[in-house]
Amino acid sequence: MRYYLGIDLGGTNIAAAVLDESYRIVASASKKTACPRPAEAIMDDMAETAREAAQKAGIRLEEVEYIGVGCPGSVNPDTGVVQYANNLDFYGVPMGEYLSRRLGRPIRIENDANAAAYGEFLAGAGAGSKEIHNFVAITLGTGVGGGLILGGRIYSGGNHAGGELGHMVIQAGGRPCTCGRRGCWEAYASATGLIESTKEAMRTNPASQLWKLAEGELGNVNGRTAFDGMRAGDETGRQVVREYIEALATGLTNIINIFQPDLISLAGGISKEGDTLLTPLKEIVDREDYARFGSHGAHLTIAKLGNDAGVIGAALLGVAKE
Amino acid sequence: MRYYLGIDLGGTNIAAAVLDESYRIVASASKKTACPRPAEAIMDDMAETAREAAQKAGIRLEEVEYIGVGCPGSVNPDTGVVQYANNLDFYGVPMGEYLSRRLGRPIRIENDANAAAYGEFLAGAGAGSKEIHNFVAITLGTGVGGGLILGGRIYSGGNHAGGELGHMVIQAGGRPCTCGRRGCWEAYASATGLIESTKEAMRTNPASQLWKLAEGELGNVNGRTAFDGMRAGDETGRQVVREYIEALATGLTNIINIFQPDLISLAGGISKEGDTLLTPLKEIVDREDYARFGSHGAHLTIAKLGNDAGVIGAALLGVAKE
Repeated sequence: MRYYLGIDLGGTNIAAAVLDESYRIVASASKKTACPRPAEAIMDDMAETAREAAQKAGIRLEEVEYIGVGCPGSVNPDTGVVQYANNLDFYGVPMGEYLSRRLGRPIRIENDANAAAYGEFLAGAGAGSKEIHNFVAITLGTGVGGGLILGGRIYSGGNHAGGELGHMVIQAGGRPCTCGRRGCWEAYASATGLIESTKEAMRTNPASQLWKLAEGELGNVNGRTAFDGMRAGDETGRQVVREYIEALATGLTNIINIFQPDLISLAGGISKEGDTLLTPLKEIVDREDYARFGSHGAHLTIAKLGNDAGVIGAALLGVAKE
Repeated sequence: MRYYLGIDLGGTNIAAAVLDESYRIVASASKKTACPRPAEAIMDDMAETAREAAQKAGIRLEEVEYIGVGCPGSVNPDTGVVQYANNLDFYGVPMGEYLSRRLGRPIRIENDANAAAYGEFLAGAGAGSKEIHNFVAITLGTGVGGGLILGGRIYSGGNHAGGELGHMVIQAGGRPCTCGRRGCWEAYASATGLIESTKEAMRTNPASQLWKLAEGELGNVNGRTAFDGMRAGDETGRQVVREYIEALATGLTNIINIFQPDLISLAGGISKEGDTLLTPLKEIVDREDYARFGSHGAHLTIAKLGNDAGVIGAALLGVAKE
């Protein structure tokens, strides 16, 4: 029996998991990241979490070929160095080397969003078909995250900072984005963007049922409010959802025209809307895809692994799709 | 001595060239495409043009390992079939097989824009440095063409229709594009887009010197008119150029955020503006690149091979960067 061990370092939690050869989690462990802390303290806890997961799975660390790590920020997989990770306050941390000494196994390390995309590719939405080699993972959360798997391998550019699909301007001069540009896809298609659009629409429509759903407080608006309003027959909610889906489709069609990927998966809270989201999205994309008259490549689907994508992808960093 | 032989099939001309091992053209030949004609007639002329180039170079066809072909439209490099090429009226033409029988050599075939990008990568703008593996070639012409070289190889997606960078919407709901969408980068950043913007500005500014440059006729406006106006001190010309460069920079920054390529080259008529174009572009891109605080990957440059990029890239389709 072959096992895989992965660690997913987040701003809140450190998660570790052991997978079996079917890429299923057989044991997991977690600790609080509790940052800010010195990098060494966090990495010591990462090592301990990995040992704990292995112990729960009943395996020795020697039984895994390597340990995979997903880490936020700019990570160099060749050197194992975390160049910078804002939310952890890490600058030039030699994480690969450190964990390798601590755990006595080779370490493979990647940016956490890339690792999660690789997890979806190998063990989630992309797992079903051998025909899927070019895969784009989109996460609709606080921002819009992207992960690119091209020709079966993670693509992140020469400086390992590529794949910032959310920071593609789709509306020049539009909404300010946290990155300093205006009109980024993320400013419209993230949960944050949807919440902002919902609030804007509520302000101009004081009679909308959305106010009731939010119990009269803009502060209670979340990524579901407009969808719930639409389901309750509210016109303002319907309009907000329509515009949200149009903006989402604009970015997705751009991605299709650029990559013609075999599959695009959508993850994050908003993706839980399932077909409410997918059906109108597919309609727009099928109409606007530049290759719509040729052999249409891209398909859209909802991601399958949820929050486990990161730790599963980290564990599988040394695996190639068969 | 090792030689390479390439054929570039265009809507107007068939060009063939022999390169030496320094990737320099040592002999070339050309014929009119004269379409519409049956595919066989055109392919017979392609074969003859290739033989003529070989003869001029003083080599036998047996001296080249393969013959490379760049062809417009949707081309499957694996099967050698031209799936469709609108302007040639080709549908499902087995070009690789046909030319291989005619010429007695293995054929390698690619979309012409991809072949041209590969030419710039190996023998033009990307040739100088061994550090360049991720390369994006942009052509500012009637449309905005794109070619992606990722990890040293042409990327075109599973259906060989990717790389349509011009059909990335940067202004949702904006100018109609020939592809049916609105606000595509191509609608603003192509020569056609620039000409349209120049005409729009002239209509609202009857006192502009641009009218003099165009000899009083909107029909005389070309891709240089606004630039020439700016150089002559015309405010309308300056404004058109400024907006043109902003739109061009928006798309380029998107491409950088997505790919973080090592190098982007700009080709096509407008690229002849050189530093007039590059200097302000770099200023905007350096300000807006998402990775501007990290290790900045992407550099912008003007393409080097001009119209020869296609035939050179075709000839080199079987060569990997060292």
